[in-house]
Amino acid sequence: MGLLVVGSLGLDTVATPFDKVENALGGSATYISLAASYFSGPVYLMGVVGEDFPKKYIDLLENHNIDLGGLQIVEGGKTFRWSGKYHYDLNVRDTLLTELNVFEEFNPMVPEKYKKSKFVCLGNIDPALQIKVLDQMDNPQFVVCDTMNYWIEGKKDDLMSLLPRSNVLIINDSEARLLAKEPNLIKASKVIRDMGPEILIIKKGEHGALLFTEDIIFSAPAYPLEMIYDPTGAGDSFAGGFIGYLHKTQDLGSENMKRAVIYGSAVASFCVEKFSTKGLEELEYLKVQDRYREFLNLSRFDEK
Amino acid sequence: MGLLVVGSLGLDTVATPFDKVENALGGSATYISLAASYFSGPVYLMGVVGEDFPKKYIDLLENHNIDLGGLQIVEGGKTFRWSGKYHYDLNVRDTLLTELNVFEEFNPMVPEKYKKSKFVCLGNIDPALQIKVLDQMDNPQFVVCDTMNYWIEGKKDDLMSLLPRSNVLIINDSEARLLAKEPNLIKASKVIRDMGPEILIIKKGEHGALLFTEDIIFSAPAYPLEMIYDPTGAGDSFAGGFIGYLHKTQDLGSENMKRAVIYGSAVASFCVEKFSTKGLEELEYLKVQDRYREFLNLSRFDEK
Repeated sequence: MGLLVVGSLGLDTVATPFDKVENALGGSATYISLAASYFSGPVYLMGVVGEDFPKKYIDLLENHNIDLGGLQIVEGGKTFRWSGKYHYDLNVRDTLLTELNVFEEFNPMVPEKYKKSKFVCLGNIDPALQIKVLDQMDNPQFVVCDTMNYWIEGKKDDLMSLLPRSNVLIINDSEARLLAKEPNLIKASKVIRDMGPEILIIKKGEHGALLFTEDIIFSAPAYPLEMIYDPTGAGDSFAGGFIGYLHKTQDLGSENMKRAVIYGSAVASFCVEKFSTKGLEELEYLKVQDRYREFLNLSRFDEK
Repeated sequence: MGLLVVGSLGLDTVATPFDKVENALGGSATYISLAASYFSGPVYLMGVVGEDFPKKYIDLLENHNIDLGGLQIVEGGKTFRWSGKYHYDLNVRDTLLTELNVFEEFNPMVPEKYKKSKFVCLGNIDPALQIKVLDQMDNPQFVVCDTMNYWIEGKKDDLMSLLPRSNVLIINDSEARLLAKEPNLIKASKVIRDMGPEILIIKKGEHGALLFTEDIIFSAPAYPLEMIYDPTGAGDSFAGGFIGYLHKTQDLGSENMKRAVIYGSAVASFCVEKFSTKGLEELEYLKVQDRYREFLNLSRFDEK
């Protein structure tokens, strides 16, 4: 059974202190799908693009065993566009432009074939749309959702309806603080888990990630990268690697959940080493496993 | 042979959103000594206070097996005072007052008995004073030093003379970025290690700590505390636990260095659970060991 991924596909114009790309392949569904594609197939992708969406990007996705049966291509429509600029300190970025275009009218219609998917990853889009997808599913077993400050502030009601229907919420630390209205992340995790998702993952960028379940707190390190070329898509790659690994192993226990967090972190570390989706385009599972072992070395210490 | 600790002793007035204390026992040497005292004795303390330094604080330090033969008590002098206020987000603090008082004229004179110490912890004071201490030592084997933005900006030359004579530099992430003039911490670690210290530890508060040696990078998690009462002294407690454990075990290899980072983090987590030095006053080594094991559980994942 395929892993269903829903989210945005877009054309990104990104500047960092090191380089600049225009109309590169971007969007949450893109990064999630590419990241997940290295774990287990098939990945079912749902999203919307315009007629201007380059054929080469369609090919790229299909070459990664990503099923595009759920991709709507709007005749005469224009693809979602995003433009951002990263500062010298890559933790700081300015959004220069967000053009929703065909995304404004996006009405996700889950193809029959996708409805039986047990694993669903709801990339960062309007929570009302995320709910609409879930409403059409037969009986999803494991739903991972992502969101952002924009929806936490502007679509709180929809988000609060979505959370009890999600098994995992993945957000970053500032979003967690905003959602819980609590600066302490450990306290915030309890507040957020009370909102519905039994599992919470808080991404902290260069500081790694925290996994909270009913039984455990797990602190994952960040891979020590000397050179981050483009942080765009890191969070989505994390989500894709995380759910991809769980979909592959079909084990939702705590120990495997920790491994999935590390696999997500490993894929994300490859993503940011190159511009746009380049770091995810020619990856190999063996390389991801090697990096997993580097994460082990990075954080392992013994009992004494 | 004793572990030599040099630094400030002071009277702290601290406000957090939860409580306030006036003229509590504080200072870098105080926290380092108390933290180290749980590992191996004796701790030799060097510093300066005024006549107003309460007898009960002298007793408290002596009750922790801390040798005060190097503590100068200036007749008619006034003890160093610091006052700070923490915000609702405890990562943010305002310094309300810094009165150097007797510290202004501090001339560290290492007692004969202390000169043969092999382990030296130079708490955060003027690097010129830290050098003065090293100049008087016979042949220290392992020198740990701490510093802060104030000295990085104002006493760069002295600091640059001190670093090649230090085995370990312990600083926080913003200080590392400032010292290396580099936002990426991994790159910054190389720049700083090139300044002299073969080992660098970057403290990241709620995000844990990074250890850099020639061979390894080690990422230590932070203990997940729901309630931090008073962050004052956390960094000094870390340094005290770190060097205390190394002094106890007399093993300076990479694996033991990692353990020392976790022991430092464990002691620091007890420190911030109570106001001022309260969290360090009635600790037990068994409790520290239990917390060490909690750190293991927090960050352990397996090969798969």
